[in-house]
Amino acid sequence: MQKIENDLFIRACKKQEIERTPIWMMRQAGRYLPEYRAVRKKSDFITMCKTPELAAEVTIQPVDLVGVDAAILFSDILVIPDAMGMNLEMHEGRGPVFPKPIRNEADANELKDIDPMTDLKYVMDSIKVTKEQLNNRVPLIGFAGSPWTLLTYMVEGSGSKNFAEVKKLIYNNPALAHKILDKLADTVAAYLSSKIESGVNAVQIFDTWGGNLSQDAFAEFSLNYIEKIVSKIKRTEEPVIVFAKGVHHSLDKIANCGADVVGLDWTMDLAKVRKQIGNKVALQGNLDPTILLSDKANIEKEAAKVLASYGKGSGHIFNLGHGILPNVPPANAKSLIDFVKVESKKYH
Amino acid sequence: MQKIENDLFIRACKKQEIERTPIWMMRQAGRYLPEYRAVRKKSDFITMCKTPELAAEVTIQPVDLVGVDAAILFSDILVIPDAMGMNLEMHEGRGPVFPKPIRNEADANELKDIDPMTDLKYVMDSIKVTKEQLNNRVPLIGFAGSPWTLLTYMVEGSGSKNFAEVKKLIYNNPALAHKILDKLADTVAAYLSSKIESGVNAVQIFDTWGGNLSQDAFAEFSLNYIEKIVSKIKRTEEPVIVFAKGVHHSLDKIANCGADVVGLDWTMDLAKVRKQIGNKVALQGNLDPTILLSDKANIEKEAAKVLASYGKGSGHIFNLGHGILPNVPPANAKSLIDFVKVESKKYH
Repeated sequence: MQKIENDLFIRACKKQEIERTPIWMMRQAGRYLPEYRAVRKKSDFITMCKTPELAAEVTIQPVDLVGVDAAILFSDILVIPDAMGMNLEMHEGRGPVFPKPIRNEADANELKDIDPMTDLKYVMDSIKVTKEQLNNRVPLIGFAGSPWTLLTYMVEGSGSKNFAEVKKLIYNNPALAHKILDKLADTVAAYLSSKIESGVNAVQIFDTWGGNLSQDAFAEFSLNYIEKIVSKIKRTEEPVIVFAKGVHHSLDKIANCGADVVGLDWTMDLAKVRKQIGNKVALQGNLDPTILLSDKANIEKEAAKVLASYGKGSGHIFNLGHGILPNVPPANAKSLIDFVKVESKKYH
Repeated sequence: MQKIENDLFIRACKKQEIERTPIWMMRQAGRYLPEYRAVRKKSDFITMCKTPELAAEVTIQPVDLVGVDAAILFSDILVIPDAMGMNLEMHEGRGPVFPKPIRNEADANELKDIDPMTDLKYVMDSIKVTKEQLNNRVPLIGFAGSPWTLLTYMVEGSGSKNFAEVKKLIYNNPALAHKILDKLADTVAAYLSSKIESGVNAVQIFDTWGGNLSQDAFAEFSLNYIEKIVSKIKRTEEPVIVFAKGVHHSLDKIANCGADVVGLDWTMDLAKVRKQIGNKVALQGNLDPTILLSDKANIEKEAAKVLASYGKGSGHIFNLGHGILPNVPPANAKSLIDFVKVESKKYH
């Protein structure tokens, strides 16, 4: 790995001694930044994902504008099913849509085997352009959705309130669900390996919908496949982060899945979780994202609580408990970051 | 209390010895039943709430049609803000809407003080008609929303994805939030007391949105007021159930709030929670509602797991982990109920 100027994030992932807590924010390359919206105005979301220069531009924006300690490559978890032949569409106000969701064996058989290096070449190109322009100022994170979260979108066909279709699939035809999940696990592992080969310095697996499963179902239909991915990723020193939202019940298991870092949503007690699994993994999180809609004084008060809750020593990456909201004033995001950079020194 | 023919539900709430586990389902008087849809076709949702004969009719339907062990009065948690002057509207496909949400002190000051016995007389009349027609076959449950959940709707004005407005209120103007929450707590306590006086045999407080708060915020803005309500409800032997969805972190505190029963969503481990708080309260739940979209064999397999997880002895009321979904085939709901009635005998 080339020497990165500010490598606090990487060192925190490895629980090495650091001088202050690093911070980045999920969805930090996003709509809350006017500079992002200016790019988005000229080009739709999917084109931005598929055009390396645009992806690189918005990826780097938060590094320059709010001062995060890591960049995360602008992309979408659904580029994988898109490359497998599902034709991702983005509908304004409705979000991602797959025109032909997967509902049976025949649909599943149409999913193409892909080689991420060629079939998702635009992602690898985006990494190269971003790395060049980032010039090793901060590490670059690459991400993917967990197989369960991908399956949810692929079966529902769009955002869902009750997850009725994908739940019907796992209860009525678990064999088919496992077949698709296994294929997705292999694909995600290859995809993240390719991202690392192309230059990212860490990877994060998002299991956005794991919290909709019961504990048994989470173990069987989600965690199993996250474990498979983590074991198969080709990496040397690049950390792996697993963030499963709402999965309060399975943190021990997640900490044992081979990941270096476990991400936490804002309902978790950082101090308690550190006692529980902090000897095995670093922890990332977990400020309630809505606090950034408040004012500087409140943001600082709540951020101080998060830092104090983790306490002294390395192994904490400050983040929100979920993605930054589109209506957050950029100045508030900057307040948070400035504050964490100073306040966290006392814990190191 | 008049002698109720099948009082298993009440006895389970009090952890008395029973011969089998009672079962009812949240939202059991609802759209999954064709007989409900037939009533709904002739009359809008709010009219159904406000017309005692219609409310009684759909309340009793699941007792006759699927054989639940308790009826729950058909109503809506938002009848309280409606009576306080907020003019509840139901928009097809969008759900409940308040045309003028509460955003500041002046808005809050417009909220009327109500006397539930007169201002929500239609609810009390619905109870009387239902009790007459139910003829003491099973107990009748009355319900209310928690102050936090009511505040969420009152401030957001409609369903919300990120709860941005209500979160801004609690962080930027906690004094105003507490003022409204306190007024709501008094109102809900008076409302549930009036319901008990009018004839319901148990009450349930729904904190649907408690899980969107961090642990500290939940204690301060939700649980505080649930406790106040529980302590103020005028009752003799009627049990109080508290169901706070997604509040995995505060079960000990909920168990100490004075309630007889704690409701659990389907991400909780019933066996573990029983060990944790089962000496203080009865537990209600917690089958994943989407399992009812599956088939008889799966429903029975998963229901058996829930029963086995609670294990031997009284103190369990079988329920779903959230409301029954509108697209569940009634035969599946009946399968579940029939199965639980027989299978649960081995645990008593």
